[in-house]
Amino acid sequence: MLAKIDKRNLEKLLKRADGVADKKASMAVLSMALLTFEPEKNLLYITTTDLEQGFKGRIQAEIEGGPLSFCVPCRKFYEIIKTFDENEIILQKDNSRLIIRDEEGSSKFELACSDSEEFPSLPEFAEENLLDIPGKVLAELIDKTIFCASKEEARFVLGGVYFEPLKEDGKLRAVASDGHRLALLDRDVPGIEDSNLKEGFIVGRKGAEIISELAEDELVVKFGFINNYACLFNSYGFFFSRTLEGTFPDYRAVIPQEFKNILKISRKLFINALDRATVLISEKFKPVKIDLKRDELILSSPEGELGMAEIKLRAEYQGNPLTITFNAEYLVSALEHMNSEEIEMKLNDERSPCLITGYRDEGFLYLVMPMVI
Amino acid sequence: MLAKIDKRNLEKLLKRADGVADKKASMAVLSMALLTFEPEKNLLYITTTDLEQGFKGRIQAEIEGGPLSFCVPCRKFYEIIKTFDENEIILQKDNSRLIIRDEEGSSKFELACSDSEEFPSLPEFAEENLLDIPGKVLAELIDKTIFCASKEEARFVLGGVYFEPLKEDGKLRAVASDGHRLALLDRDVPGIEDSNLKEGFIVGRKGAEIISELAEDELVVKFGFINNYACLFNSYGFFFSRTLEGTFPDYRAVIPQEFKNILKISRKLFINALDRATVLISEKFKPVKIDLKRDELILSSPEGELGMAEIKLRAEYQGNPLTITFNAEYLVSALEHMNSEEIEMKLNDERSPCLITGYRDEGFLYLVMPMVI
Repeated sequence: MLAKIDKRNLEKLLKRADGVADKKASMAVLSMALLTFEPEKNLLYITTTDLEQGFKGRIQAEIEGGPLSFCVPCRKFYEIIKTFDENEIILQKDNSRLIIRDEEGSSKFELACSDSEEFPSLPEFAEENLLDIPGKVLAELIDKTIFCASKEEARFVLGGVYFEPLKEDGKLRAVASDGHRLALLDRDVPGIEDSNLKEGFIVGRKGAEIISELAEDELVVKFGFINNYACLFNSYGFFFSRTLEGTFPDYRAVIPQEFKNILKISRKLFINALDRATVLISEKFKPVKIDLKRDELILSSPEGELGMAEIKLRAEYQGNPLTITFNAEYLVSALEHMNSEEIEMKLNDERSPCLITGYRDEGFLYLVMPMVI
Repeated sequence: MLAKIDKRNLEKLLKRADGVADKKASMAVLSMALLTFEPEKNLLYITTTDLEQGFKGRIQAEIEGGPLSFCVPCRKFYEIIKTFDENEIILQKDNSRLIIRDEEGSSKFELACSDSEEFPSLPEFAEENLLDIPGKVLAELIDKTIFCASKEEARFVLGGVYFEPLKEDGKLRAVASDGHRLALLDRDVPGIEDSNLKEGFIVGRKGAEIISELAEDELVVKFGFINNYACLFNSYGFFFSRTLEGTFPDYRAVIPQEFKNILKISRKLFINALDRATVLISEKFKPVKIDLKRDELILSSPEGELGMAEIKLRAEYQGNPLTITFNAEYLVSALEHMNSEEIEMKLNDERSPCLITGYRDEGFLYLVMPMVI
């Protein structure tokens, strides 16, 4: 026997590790997990990387024999562990095979291993001076903004979440934008003044999504920016992601400070009406014309080959009559990330950006450009 | 106003009609629904066809004005109706547009119409002398066999479900096979002796799936075979499907009458073990070797690049030691369509077909060929 391990914890750790490994890797070793058995501490370490990101997690294990390390295909190891019903799993090493079995020996898997020397060495980070932040807060900063990050390769600095420490306010800010819309969330983080977070940094989409997953179930994590890497320590491991190079655009300059018109509307009714108004549009961009008059809102789709739609809604509108067109997807995706029953849309004219906020969405704002047809 | 209609019934009817319409039609009219308003009976008829299949359903409607018929895009009409929260929907006709709105007029859709003359005329069938069969029984005959029907274009007569009246036994039989495996289900149908069902007929996959859907919620439906069409009348409409030409193979000849070896095993444990034994096989065909000894079963995957798996199971085996290989998918798909806690596998040798039955699966049998490697 090499090790005896709790099945549920191993499955959870492998799920995280598999999220980092590179599934379409041209280098086979990037789809591998490096397993390192340390008998003195009774710990098994599992490491994966795609060269831009890296993860090293640990799990308690009853280990026999000397220290040992080797690589196995991460996804397959994870899939095998998932199939076990037992609470404990036995690992054995037999030449170039890892044997995975239950205690009784009624099921046995053999998985091909390779040498640990092939596995790339990863940068290491000290846990000191990082920011202590509740896991849920960090996950929320990412989840409420990342949907706006660009998916186009060309817009490199827009392809992630920009983190900006606002030390004077004791806040951490997250911003993401694809150039057509922008989401911003501020959260109080006591202690940010004393952390070594000094400047803003951009975490790419994959890295940001993994940070959110590694943080969300944790009471407190350590988060920081060191030598062009964003890094995170949680209760069972650490993760790093190389930050995107370049400067995040001056987003403050595009947020208007004054608005002439304000619409207050039920968030759920608005989502429903936007979905209905676009049911006859087959194209990816779904323009919806919004006619604003006192206490009434009319959504309509442009006259298309198949027909058109028109939805009237009651709403509270203060301002001049205005007709403005938005890509419905850009409104719906933002509204779905909000919590408020009623939201506020602030507008100037049909060519100027619109600001969306909500009473129950403190610290959050969403800016969206109208479509000019 | 043209008509006022109950929303839920209209949505349900359009869902059925849309299942028949041809979504990838080269002829646009085959993706249309023909709407026929009959004020005398206060009925709206909805008809769709892909030329091989046809459906004509009816729904109560409060109709004003004279009889009228025209075509609308079926899928879009269905999608629009789905978005309504209201219980009743108003239809209006405005030149070449169908207007769909709620009673208040807060939402309004305009859908392009075309002339009813373009719509193909469909064969008609008399309801007389058809077989009265409980809807659930007809649906079960299809659902428990169709998963074996061939998906290959070349095997035309195997691409559906073969219905065979067994008048002497008072049963209706359904059989499907792709040449590697076969599923058969018999069900008592009182009255089949007196129906005009005389010979067997093959209903293609799409037709059989629709018949199952149209039958499953109905107490009794009328089912029959008239002039190369299978046809079905349910409580709100009728459906026909052109039957497949050619003769269904003599399946009786391939079912062995005697077996030397019998395995009794828990169905759920067997499914689980088959899934586990194939976790390391990435290919479509998943060979699993089964070693049968007294009271023990060992499943193993062939030695692959990534490794191998071996699962032991307790089972009741009467017969000679035997090693036989199956495509795991062929076993799992059959076991998942069965109800019995314990199933019986009857075997002769490693090259002969295996018969699977179960105590709680009366009238059902499944025959599968082993893989010869």
